[in-house]
Amino acid sequence: MTQARELTIVGHPAPRVEGFEKVTGSAKYVADIPAPGALAGKILRSPYAHARILRIDTARAEALRGVWAVVTAEDTLRRGWGAFVQDQMALATDKVRYVGDEVAAVAAVDEDTARAAIDLIEVSYEELPAVFDTESAMADGAPQIHDQYERNTVITIAVERGDVEKAFAESDVIVEDTFESQHQWHAPLETIGSVAEYSPSGKYTIYMNTQTLFMARGRIAWVLGVSEADVRIIQTEVGGGFGGKSCDDNNAIIAALLARKSGRSVRIINTREEEFMAGSRPRVPMRVWVKIGFSRDGRIRAKQMRIVADNGAYSGKAPAIMGVSAFRHETSYKYSDTKTEAHLVYTNKIPTGAFRGFGNPSADWAVEQLLDIGAKALGMDPLELLRLNAVEPGYVSPHGNRVEGCELKQCIDLVEEKMDWKTKWAAKTPNRGVGIACTVHVSGKRHFMDYDGGSATIKMNEDGKVYILSGEGEIGQGANTVFCQIAAEELGVKLSDVSISRADTDLTTFCLGAFGSRLTYVGGNAVKAAATALREQLFEAAAEMLETEPRKLTARDGEILDVGAETSVSTATVARARLFRRGGAPLVATGAFDADSVMQDVTRYGNESGAYNFGAQAAEVEVDTETGQVKIRSYVSVADCGTVVNPIGAVGQVTGSLAQGIGYALTEHLEFDNGRPVDPNYHGYKIPCIADMPPLEYAFADSYEPSGPFGAKGLGELGSDPTAACIGNAIFDAVGIRIKTLPITPEKVLALLRERDARQA
Amino acid sequence: MTQARELTIVGHPAPRVEGFEKVTGSAKYVADIPAPGALAGKILRSPYAHARILRIDTARAEALRGVWAVVTAEDTLRRGWGAFVQDQMALATDKVRYVGDEVAAVAAVDEDTARAAIDLIEVSYEELPAVFDTESAMADGAPQIHDQYERNTVITIAVERGDVEKAFAESDVIVEDTFESQHQWHAPLETIGSVAEYSPSGKYTIYMNTQTLFMARGRIAWVLGVSEADVRIIQTEVGGGFGGKSCDDNNAIIAALLARKSGRSVRIINTREEEFMAGSRPRVPMRVWVKIGFSRDGRIRAKQMRIVADNGAYSGKAPAIMGVSAFRHETSYKYSDTKTEAHLVYTNKIPTGAFRGFGNPSADWAVEQLLDIGAKALGMDPLELLRLNAVEPGYVSPHGNRVEGCELKQCIDLVEEKMDWKTKWAAKTPNRGVGIACTVHVSGKRHFMDYDGGSATIKMNEDGKVYILSGEGEIGQGANTVFCQIAAEELGVKLSDVSISRADTDLTTFCLGAFGSRLTYVGGNAVKAAATALREQLFEAAAEMLETEPRKLTARDGEILDVGAETSVSTATVARARLFRRGGAPLVATGAFDADSVMQDVTRYGNESGAYNFGAQAAEVEVDTETGQVKIRSYVSVADCGTVVNPIGAVGQVTGSLAQGIGYALTEHLEFDNGRPVDPNYHGYKIPCIADMPPLEYAFADSYEPSGPFGAKGLGELGSDPTAACIGNAIFDAVGIRIKTLPITPEKVLALLRERDARQA
Repeated sequence: MTQARELTIVGHPAPRVEGFEKVTGSAKYVADIPAPGALAGKILRSPYAHARILRIDTARAEALRGVWAVVTAEDTLRRGWGAFVQDQMALATDKVRYVGDEVAAVAAVDEDTARAAIDLIEVSYEELPAVFDTESAMADGAPQIHDQYERNTVITIAVERGDVEKAFAESDVIVEDTFESQHQWHAPLETIGSVAEYSPSGKYTIYMNTQTLFMARGRIAWVLGVSEADVRIIQTEVGGGFGGKSCDDNNAIIAALLARKSGRSVRIINTREEEFMAGSRPRVPMRVWVKIGFSRDGRIRAKQMRIVADNGAYSGKAPAIMGVSAFRHETSYKYSDTKTEAHLVYTNKIPTGAFRGFGNPSADWAVEQLLDIGAKALGMDPLELLRLNAVEPGYVSPHGNRVEGCELKQCIDLVEEKMDWKTKWAAKTPNRGVGIACTVHVSGKRHFMDYDGGSATIKMNEDGKVYILSGEGEIGQGANTVFCQIAAEELGVKLSDVSISRADTDLTTFCLGAFGSRLTYVGGNAVKAAATALREQLFEAAAEMLETEPRKLTARDGEILDVGAETSVSTATVARARLFRRGGAPLVATGAFDADSVMQDVTRYGNESGAYNFGAQAAEVEVDTETGQVKIRSYVSVADCGTVVNPIGAVGQVTGSLAQGIGYALTEHLEFDNGRPVDPNYHGYKIPCIADMPPLEYAFADSYEPSGPFGAKGLGELGSDPTAACIGNAIFDAVGIRIKTLPITPEKVLALLRERDARQA
Repeated sequence: MTQARELTIVGHPAPRVEGFEKVTGSAKYVADIPAPGALAGKILRSPYAHARILRIDTARAEALRGVWAVVTAEDTLRRGWGAFVQDQMALATDKVRYVGDEVAAVAAVDEDTARAAIDLIEVSYEELPAVFDTESAMADGAPQIHDQYERNTVITIAVERGDVEKAFAESDVIVEDTFESQHQWHAPLETIGSVAEYSPSGKYTIYMNTQTLFMARGRIAWVLGVSEADVRIIQTEVGGGFGGKSCDDNNAIIAALLARKSGRSVRIINTREEEFMAGSRPRVPMRVWVKIGFSRDGRIRAKQMRIVADNGAYSGKAPAIMGVSAFRHETSYKYSDTKTEAHLVYTNKIPTGAFRGFGNPSADWAVEQLLDIGAKALGMDPLELLRLNAVEPGYVSPHGNRVEGCELKQCIDLVEEKMDWKTKWAAKTPNRGVGIACTVHVSGKRHFMDYDGGSATIKMNEDGKVYILSGEGEIGQGANTVFCQIAAEELGVKLSDVSISRADTDLTTFCLGAFGSRLTYVGGNAVKAAATALREQLFEAAAEMLETEPRKLTARDGEILDVGAETSVSTATVARARLFRRGGAPLVATGAFDADSVMQDVTRYGNESGAYNFGAQAAEVEVDTETGQVKIRSYVSVADCGTVVNPIGAVGQVTGSLAQGIGYALTEHLEFDNGRPVDPNYHGYKIPCIADMPPLEYAFADSYEPSGPFGAKGLGELGSDPTAACIGNAIFDAVGIRIKTLPITPEKVLALLRERDARQA
């Protein structure tokens, strides 16, 4: 599906609008924010996974020369906070619940002094029995991590659509299995950090590398007991987010507390160890049992699922993540009768949270492998099974997700072609195999306050150049470039004549921020709405100058043309003339967009997003049966993201998400020892480096999302969703073993190969 | 004249919105702007009043360790710039034209190194004959300061309205005289300064303590040869403007050149000596001959005037200032037949420019004394003469200024009452006397690009609190407090719930900035327009919640009430509900206002402002005939500024302007020696201190400007306009001498007293 209007900027490669600053080192990350006289903040963290705090003595720390402030729970309102469940404290109150939990903090003239002061704080703990896995946590007589939650269960979901029992009874082939996934850390280049200032007039100003600054503002205002207007969040350059910088942690709050108490600016940047132990909230580990029934022809007839998810010590976004794992998958394939039960369970480990893909990768790891198992049982090529069941425009999932634009089948077709699937599937070369998996993602998600909107203000200078004020936030994903492209396209000016602000809660209008693959779609629609309104003002003025009607005008490269009359005038001339005259006014417009989605009701029925994006992937692997090493020989990733606004950026998203998908599949993992992560740094936690990346072929479906800006929808997350399952399926095709717990380490592969060989022997 | 609506915030005393930051020292002036690694910039200035530059050798300066950049005219486009006449260079090209003219500049690691490098720059000059007074400059064979201007005359105005010869012939009493005025420096607490950054991507960011940041942007972009969008001006806190910080000087431009060349941030803050020699552009000295003819009953019948104004070496705003001196006075009293001739003449002294009152004080010094002389000749009480001739609503000046709101007669009545004029005028106590003088000022002036508009964007947070984005600029005058009051009043929220941005050309819409007493009127109208638009959105949402119609609603203190139905809802509740819902959008609106004034045509006919403000003052002085000292025993200042938005701020304006008026009248003056100001610092230049201030009585006319926001109009400048004449008139009443050259020093008084005594002897 294509569109009538010829696009000159959207759909064409655009270098990053902030690229120059980044490559020259002038971009300002948290560490670069000038804050003369800023103190260094350091946090005292719990060494215990579960303990009662009996006493905190800060006297010696306070007496140390160079220390300006020491804060404990005494300095807080002891008010729980969190995105959905308000179970987290700014500083531990009475109890600590994981190794790394914040107990106290110090602001001092330098880092060394702050560290020394931390060592001088004396905390008496009474250690409590701890639980580190969901099974133990849910067992009778397990220690209660939070008093009010029975069996440590934060939330339980139980939903049936249709008649699952009947549907299974009517199924010809039924398969089932259980799959487990692990924590995955975002491991961005830059750790979480903030610089907080406090004016005794009552206002906090916090420079943060957050993805979601207005949400951060709301939460921080709540914890500090002030109004939103009393907190100003200024987004710094962000060195990678991936969900980990969406303000579910205490870094900025503690900086704010220290700034208030010390009367000085306070900078706290997580060390890499802190980042792993207690910083960005890693992906929620899940155990997923899933059962699917098929008709003889391969059509999915029934599905049942049971999830137990490891929440860690506090909730953050895990309730929503588990909800996504439970339901969203059913927007990929045509489901009718399904039943899902899911339990989110506290353990004495790091709180879990949002990571690119949200609940998808954990669910896809299970379901997309089970479909592969189903194909085997049906004697079908799994690609054909997926193509047969793939959703199409007009599909409504059992939970209400309405699919309008959808090119999932086209994605599968492209994967087939680019992987040369038919040949490779037939080949059955020893130790080599291919696998396929698909996914669906959202373009924004309605799960906060019945709102999934965005807004932007665009002004045009008297020189005809354009400035966008947006509060969504560039976090390295390229959103600001996309926004500038959309505005340039709509206004008919050169991309180089469009600039964009940093996000700042005081200066920009409310935006939910960067999560849920929402920026191109929701943020882009808001930018487009503002640009359309601005263009109307511009064309009205131009029509007056050209003595024509606005509807006859078109604009391109900074020229406004009356095509019929063969007359034109430059945008700059119009802009200057519209301002500098009697009754003049600057050209400025605000646009807003709220997705046409529906908040889930109490039965969890709704339509979570305004548009759904899809992906299909195929992997070709070779398994070294001596070492258990899995080598990915080639990889194909195809996405349906509607119109590709910026091809350079889109390829970056595809490549980056594949790297995270491969890491999730093969290497990323930290051992815990009594609740303490072992070796919490890049030495212990292996993310794929460039040498680990396979040759990647990618493609984008020819697609146009009717509700998107110039036909665009989300892309950023779907690329890592099905990767682990895809690799798992290829491994099965290669060597006939099925790994069911992530990551797929050589040790696990070897063990299963030995088991296989023993079976065959 | 009063208004129907009861005001709860406008008209009530409001503490400064930025007051807390100022009194606690956290407000950021140029010196406080954090710029890590910023270099110190220093400027090499001409020691000659007029000279040809033969050669500049910067080699030794460049070689000095710690020097990052040296710039000369070679680093510029050699492009003249200026508000009206583009005769000034960023750095001297070929010639220097006054002592202090910028020749070269250095950026170095610290001030000492920069200063040392300045001393290492070798400049060969060929000294040229110089002219230091307008008479010599206009003489045959005078040295040409700028090649293209004959007799060194930049601009000549010659306008006659009606038939002046006939009108004088019909006059019963005719008086004439010549009065001279001097340079007056703004002498603010903070000197001009800037911090410039340059990104090799092509963008300059300049932190400046300017009054007029968008105008600064336009001029700086022009000099640097870039587009407006390539220059971002961020206004710092401003430690006093008074016209001197309206970007007619080279400080920021040189900082930008050094930043570009060095690749580092560069900070240049004028020393106090530089500020006097070549920084803020002092008031234009003028010689004014004026002749007025009266009917026997005291009505003004004819007026003729000749002005010669000392432009100094470059033009800046002097052309407009001389235009104001030439014509605006005729909006105070009813004139019909007038003739004016005015010449603006280059001399080899510091360029002159805008100072509070613009052209008024220089003209008032002459005309308001001549009216006093006329009253004597007519045998009238001068107060009666002024009251008889004072303009009233409906008056149109000979040059087209249309007076709508006007309470000048009420001002005169109030002066009469508060000075106990009748008694004191009759008393004739030896060496004591009273004087009166009036003035008119504008509320914005249409003299740039046929525009006298303003704009503002207001957003309401989800907590119902309000944030204003305004590019007009707080410079210490209290404009931001007035804007917050107007927004709070219109939106019905508490003043403490309104905040306002700093002005920033990237983030705020185009505003002309702080000059011409325009902010309360023009800027205030723009803020009010934005608030009205925002209130419409707010009331629409509130009406939905209260199940009523928007027109039935009113708001006060953050509550929106349906008075008839006795129902209400808080603004915060409405704001949150309007955002967080399906189809939600943030509350935000932009407002614009352009004054209903008319640009002067080629005959200088127009209507310069949307509203005129008026003032009347009376002084009671005592002259010490032994020392020549003039002591002001009491002073009355009455203003017609329409509605007084902030009584605290208004009194500050009245008091501050009186101090500058008294300084202008009695003490402020620098001697020049061969074009070089002698003793250019506060030791040599005496501004009144608190002990020099007389007991001040003030009043504000009961007044309502129909076109103003809540009836308000300008106030800031009129308080110093007539002060010198008022004191001069009082001295005449006290001791019968008429001082005709400013300032009124004891030496001049003594000399005239001796002359008087000799005459009487």
